[in-house]
Amino acid sequence: MTAPRSAPASGADPCDGDAILARLRALAAFTDVPGEMTRLTLSPAHKAAAAQVAQWFAAAGMAVHLDATGSVVGRYDGLDPHAPALLLGSHIDTVRNAGIFDGNLGVMLGLAVVEQLATTGRRLPFPIEVLAFADEEGVRFPSTLTSSRAVAGRFDPTALDDVDADGITRRAALQAFGVMADATAACDRTRTARAYVEAHIEQGPVLERLGLPLGVVTAIAGASRGRVAVRGQAGHSGTLPMEMRNDALTAAAEMILAVEARGRQEPSLVATVGTLTIPGAAVNVVPGTVSFSLDVRAPDDHQRLAALADILAGLDTIAARRGVSVAFERTYEEAAAPCDPALQAALAAAVARTGVPVHHLPSGAGHDGLSLNGALPIAMLFVRSRNGSHNPREDASAADIGLAARTLCAFVEELARITE
Amino acid sequence: MTAPRSAPASGADPCDGDAILARLRALAAFTDVPGEMTRLTLSPAHKAAAAQVAQWFAAAGMAVHLDATGSVVGRYDGLDPHAPALLLGSHIDTVRNAGIFDGNLGVMLGLAVVEQLATTGRRLPFPIEVLAFADEEGVRFPSTLTSSRAVAGRFDPTALDDVDADGITRRAALQAFGVMADATAACDRTRTARAYVEAHIEQGPVLERLGLPLGVVTAIAGASRGRVAVRGQAGHSGTLPMEMRNDALTAAAEMILAVEARGRQEPSLVATVGTLTIPGAAVNVVPGTVSFSLDVRAPDDHQRLAALADILAGLDTIAARRGVSVAFERTYEEAAAPCDPALQAALAAAVARTGVPVHHLPSGAGHDGLSLNGALPIAMLFVRSRNGSHNPREDASAADIGLAARTLCAFVEELARITE
Repeated sequence: MTAPRSAPASGADPCDGDAILARLRALAAFTDVPGEMTRLTLSPAHKAAAAQVAQWFAAAGMAVHLDATGSVVGRYDGLDPHAPALLLGSHIDTVRNAGIFDGNLGVMLGLAVVEQLATTGRRLPFPIEVLAFADEEGVRFPSTLTSSRAVAGRFDPTALDDVDADGITRRAALQAFGVMADATAACDRTRTARAYVEAHIEQGPVLERLGLPLGVVTAIAGASRGRVAVRGQAGHSGTLPMEMRNDALTAAAEMILAVEARGRQEPSLVATVGTLTIPGAAVNVVPGTVSFSLDVRAPDDHQRLAALADILAGLDTIAARRGVSVAFERTYEEAAAPCDPALQAALAAAVARTGVPVHHLPSGAGHDGLSLNGALPIAMLFVRSRNGSHNPREDASAADIGLAARTLCAFVEELARITE
Repeated sequence: MTAPRSAPASGADPCDGDAILARLRALAAFTDVPGEMTRLTLSPAHKAAAAQVAQWFAAAGMAVHLDATGSVVGRYDGLDPHAPALLLGSHIDTVRNAGIFDGNLGVMLGLAVVEQLATTGRRLPFPIEVLAFADEEGVRFPSTLTSSRAVAGRFDPTALDDVDADGITRRAALQAFGVMADATAACDRTRTARAYVEAHIEQGPVLERLGLPLGVVTAIAGASRGRVAVRGQAGHSGTLPMEMRNDALTAAAEMILAVEARGRQEPSLVATVGTLTIPGAAVNVVPGTVSFSLDVRAPDDHQRLAALADILAGLDTIAARRGVSVAFERTYEEAAAPCDPALQAALAAAVARTGVPVHHLPSGAGHDGLSLNGALPIAMLFVRSRNGSHNPREDASAADIGLAARTLCAFVEELARITE
């Protein structure tokens, strides 16, 4: 790790996109793997990055602490110190060989909002807290989203016994990080916060295709995942006539097209087969067994579950017609997290005030807001990114970042106006 | 290896199915892997099996030698010792964990035909030679069918430099087997043989489904094989909307169904996708690249090549419509070997004389006859087998084996009648 460049000079515009981009680049120096952006949860690089973030938070006039899950929490008090706080933020852990925007951008934008208020000494009716969550990507330990789950009062203590690939428990990693692993109850903000609002790069191509810098998220999509196993009858590719075959792969091919067709029936719904394996496959063997993955997501749970039911019924029909068997094993199920309508409206108004056309879209990827669903109202602002996310080429422009910062400033003012 | 049981008692009916089955079981004792039937070409078990076969051949009154490729050749002279010989036989090498019928059955049936003649001292107008080919399965060395290629005068000397998984060359293996590896020119029978006729288990389910013990082969199918590579664009399964996808797997699925549909258009044609891989596959990634195998076979070369051309054109159409690229790399091409019409007619007459309904069918699997295509007239008799071939459960009944033996005896008499 090398020392990051210093924060923007005081007196500069906190919402200047270039300045925020400079901070993101400075923060990228904290990596577990030199030459790339890899900052796994609770790693030494994460600890150093958290210290840097804490320093920036403090310099902006916030009271700062590390919570029991490793999140950095900075508090900028409001006129009424007892009013429930508006939580802004995102996460600062990353996947391996990540880009510099995913997660980190939302934290830097929350910081910019507080700096903007602090430069004029302005206080809102409510406190603002900026959170740099510690555990969103789920790369290091089997469970994830523990930081946001703790804020929702839903921390599962068995997560402390999670073990990483090196045999290190989450508990030991938290102790090395410098926090009290057993004090997660204190993280619960369900009675002391009014909402959680996160800005994040889009991770998909929609805003880029539409030529829009910002998007207001309608919901974080729920997901159903599972494994489909198709069993037919293996045979010799030369000696088994076509009409005598019960080919598991051609059956699977028809099923994959049925998954795609159902996914295409409704906007915001996606249905994907990502993996497919043929045990004992050979060029000259008619496949007897095929298994493939299924991933169905939608911003509305009824929509998702109806699509899944239709898909499974379709698979059964195809299997019966082709004389093969099919079995579905559900491996993952996550309800959608709808964004709060009033917060969406306030975000949309702020986008419009910044002079940007308002576009609503769902988030197909998961975020910390999933953990807060039902515990706190949530909202998200998407920032256009080239090349998706989770790779070094993810890229948000300084101009778009500046627009996002000004939008969030307008948003908190809009919230203050509603509150007063 | 344990000593095999002795041959059937003299005086017994050489065409008795149980007696032939007993010989097959005795021969199965010669295995490289105790407890299973594994007899790779030129292995110690193969050498011992060849010695046993040579002993049985000699006991039946044949002059026996090992040829330069390791085949056992037994000669039963005819009335005219200078007449071109009728070659009967099959191979005695096996795949790993094989059954006891594939190959070995055809050799034992050729032996039975000679025994049947010898018991009455009968001589046909032409000599009969029974061949136990050494190299049909192609498991041990990169090249295969070297024994039959030598008979066709087409032995490729570079095959002597083939190396097996243990670094042993074919030349060294032949020397250990006890033959003169460089004397393959003497194997050429194109001027001293009239035809090659092989009996073999069917390896497919057609005769079993039809309830028929025997089938007359029309041709050994030709084959075209290759690898299809589909390139689309990878993406996040949650954030990439359906209408923006260039999913390589759904494109491949449509292609697989097109392959199947074309294969179904004509009887005797088969078209198979046996392998499919997705590099970098994950449940939550829209597949960007997919590759799969293609195997097209037909007893007629024009039929096969027309089907392949149609399939490749269909793949291009699908790729263009879906915005992906597709490339086909041909890896294997083998022309069909049509069976000689006169020999087929003689075999059909012999089947009918044995009291069995005559059914013609192609061979979708390859056989030594492929190597002889154009060098000698060939014919094949299929014997019903349960559970295909190349596995321990392949199974021909004693009754069917007996019918096959009597059919071959009738066949050589029919050939003698035509010849006289």
